[in-house]
Amino acid sequence: MARTIGVIGGGQLARMMIVPAIELGLELKVLAETEGSPAKLAATRVGDYKDLDTVRAFAQTVDVMTFDHEHVPLHVLESLEAEGFLFEPSSKALRFAQNKLEMRKKLAELDVPIPAWAEVNSASELDDFISTHGSVAILKTPTGGYDGKGVRVVRSSADAADWLSLGKPLLVEEKVNFVRELAQLSARNRSGDWKAWPLVQTIQRDGVCAEVLSPAPEANYEMAAEIAQQIAVGLDVTGVLAVELFETVDGRLLVNELAMRPHNSGHFSIEGSVTSQFEQHLRAVLDLPLGDVSASSDFAVMLNLLGTDDENTFVGHYSTALKVGLGAHVHTYGKGASAGRKMGHVTALSSQSLDDAHAKATAAYKALQA
Amino acid sequence: MARTIGVIGGGQLARMMIVPAIELGLELKVLAETEGSPAKLAATRVGDYKDLDTVRAFAQTVDVMTFDHEHVPLHVLESLEAEGFLFEPSSKALRFAQNKLEMRKKLAELDVPIPAWAEVNSASELDDFISTHGSVAILKTPTGGYDGKGVRVVRSSADAADWLSLGKPLLVEEKVNFVRELAQLSARNRSGDWKAWPLVQTIQRDGVCAEVLSPAPEANYEMAAEIAQQIAVGLDVTGVLAVELFETVDGRLLVNELAMRPHNSGHFSIEGSVTSQFEQHLRAVLDLPLGDVSASSDFAVMLNLLGTDDENTFVGHYSTALKVGLGAHVHTYGKGASAGRKMGHVTALSSQSLDDAHAKATAAYKALQA
Repeated sequence: MARTIGVIGGGQLARMMIVPAIELGLELKVLAETEGSPAKLAATRVGDYKDLDTVRAFAQTVDVMTFDHEHVPLHVLESLEAEGFLFEPSSKALRFAQNKLEMRKKLAELDVPIPAWAEVNSASELDDFISTHGSVAILKTPTGGYDGKGVRVVRSSADAADWLSLGKPLLVEEKVNFVRELAQLSARNRSGDWKAWPLVQTIQRDGVCAEVLSPAPEANYEMAAEIAQQIAVGLDVTGVLAVELFETVDGRLLVNELAMRPHNSGHFSIEGSVTSQFEQHLRAVLDLPLGDVSASSDFAVMLNLLGTDDENTFVGHYSTALKVGLGAHVHTYGKGASAGRKMGHVTALSSQSLDDAHAKATAAYKALQA
Repeated sequence: MARTIGVIGGGQLARMMIVPAIELGLELKVLAETEGSPAKLAATRVGDYKDLDTVRAFAQTVDVMTFDHEHVPLHVLESLEAEGFLFEPSSKALRFAQNKLEMRKKLAELDVPIPAWAEVNSASELDDFISTHGSVAILKTPTGGYDGKGVRVVRSSADAADWLSLGKPLLVEEKVNFVRELAQLSARNRSGDWKAWPLVQTIQRDGVCAEVLSPAPEANYEMAAEIAQQIAVGLDVTGVLAVELFETVDGRLLVNELAMRPHNSGHFSIEGSVTSQFEQHLRAVLDLPLGDVSASSDFAVMLNLLGTDDENTFVGHYSTALKVGLGAHVHTYGKGASAGRKMGHVTALSSQSLDDAHAKATAAYKALQA
């Protein structure tokens, strides 16, 4: 069987994939952007993932490739697939994670519940959409956005003059009156095996994921899983798929964003699930049978460690944090400190309640900030 | 705080230490014996751990050193400690894990329950011991034995002519009439924090650990933990300490062997405990607070994957094994195949019974042998 997996991108997701590779005895190689990346232990090459020759040279050293991020240009993927190299997910699926307009078109075609949306190419088209959808809307650049970047609340085309002047299509969506945000994580392999973790609730701050609660309290679990499966099958996604959802006031679930890789909303699964999203992703990429996604504890809470300044890598606070956060699992990513950067996360489990897990995680979190 | 740990030896124990190093964001460097070792991802140097200059050069790149095995010569450790380099455990503790005669003397001094023993230097001394201890005894070379090597059942000095002719002291012990073997795993840091995992039962075949059951059914848990703590404190052990015990027909516990590092009897803790022995070892070596050693599931069974021939690395059987062994955790060590070699292990958890965990682990184990 194929057993050497290449990961494009050397961030924390690639870093966390090293763990199941070690445990399962699989070979993992990473094409990192820079020396000293979070995934440096497995980095066999440093180079530009936008450069065809660089990615080809890396491809020649592995059996199958997957991703730490969705930024590898589609033409690079398509060229290499034409040469016989294997990507999981393939370019046919990944194009929908790379381009939000393509994604909206495809999900509409599949009849998946999504916010009202339109492609806009001019100020008048944008103003028309805004006026028919409650005088406010969400405008997005189809490509390149993440963690709140490339997304803007607009009340008129004047709020988007800069983006409109670029002459490229934009995606406009209704501003959904949501009660909360949820995420449905699942994984699928080439053979069609599909498994979903429990639906989680995500809490964002300033457009960045801050907290994840597993399972989401009282939600339409069946519908969330059904939507995720419909997308995984409809888009032929392989590997982990994260479906970010809005829950509306009237109890509907609408798909917000997609990611076709391990995702921040699934970090809880490292300790909180029999099979973590990182192990599942490797299994799926190799078309191995997927693992049990039962919860290993009834409740799990994950808190992101966002950089506080240019000095605190959190590691220096371990002596205190590991004492007060007994039972909380602390993860840091080996990144240089920078305010707002995702530097690590803390997960706590509980057999009693989400509140109990939250209190344990918070104790460790606070000690790490100190 | 110190955060770069050097591990001497590149075997599977060093390999499994890489996992918590990644998770906790600690730097781990390995001095491996050979290229392509199980711990190759973290290997920063390949060389002879018996050579003072090699170990010193490695020592200069880390904050503190620890071990994958106990074979670094004592004079190397003592020389480097005199130069100011730090080992956890220190040479003062490790000498007792390296030399079984020293260990017996020290445990006798501490009044820890052990089998009857003697140092013998001649055929007549050996025959005297045998005749006063039931016409059969266990003879051991004080150093260099592991996995059944350096251990022999003797009925007279004629059975040991080769070893006696070497002119070095030997250790003779009564052949304990034991019901079963147990192992008490614990960890201690420099500050004196000490924690013990549940007592486990170990099942050996041909002198090699084959199965571990956690917890050991109906045993004297308090006495086992007390013995382990007495040894950890009395020998000033830092890091993980494994105490292998005989349970006698009349219910006594006698110390068989010691290991001052993560140990095969503790592999179950990767999934079966809130804090694995590998994470705990790193915490202890850095003098960080020790983690929660509660069981993450009531029952755990670990089965060693011993090499079947010169070809089966087990990885090729994953497609079948991961399907039938749903919920069993498969680990392989990236070693070349060889009959009898410890190539990996399988762990299964159960909330119901040891039998249930055993059945799950066995299903995966059998599929991997096929």
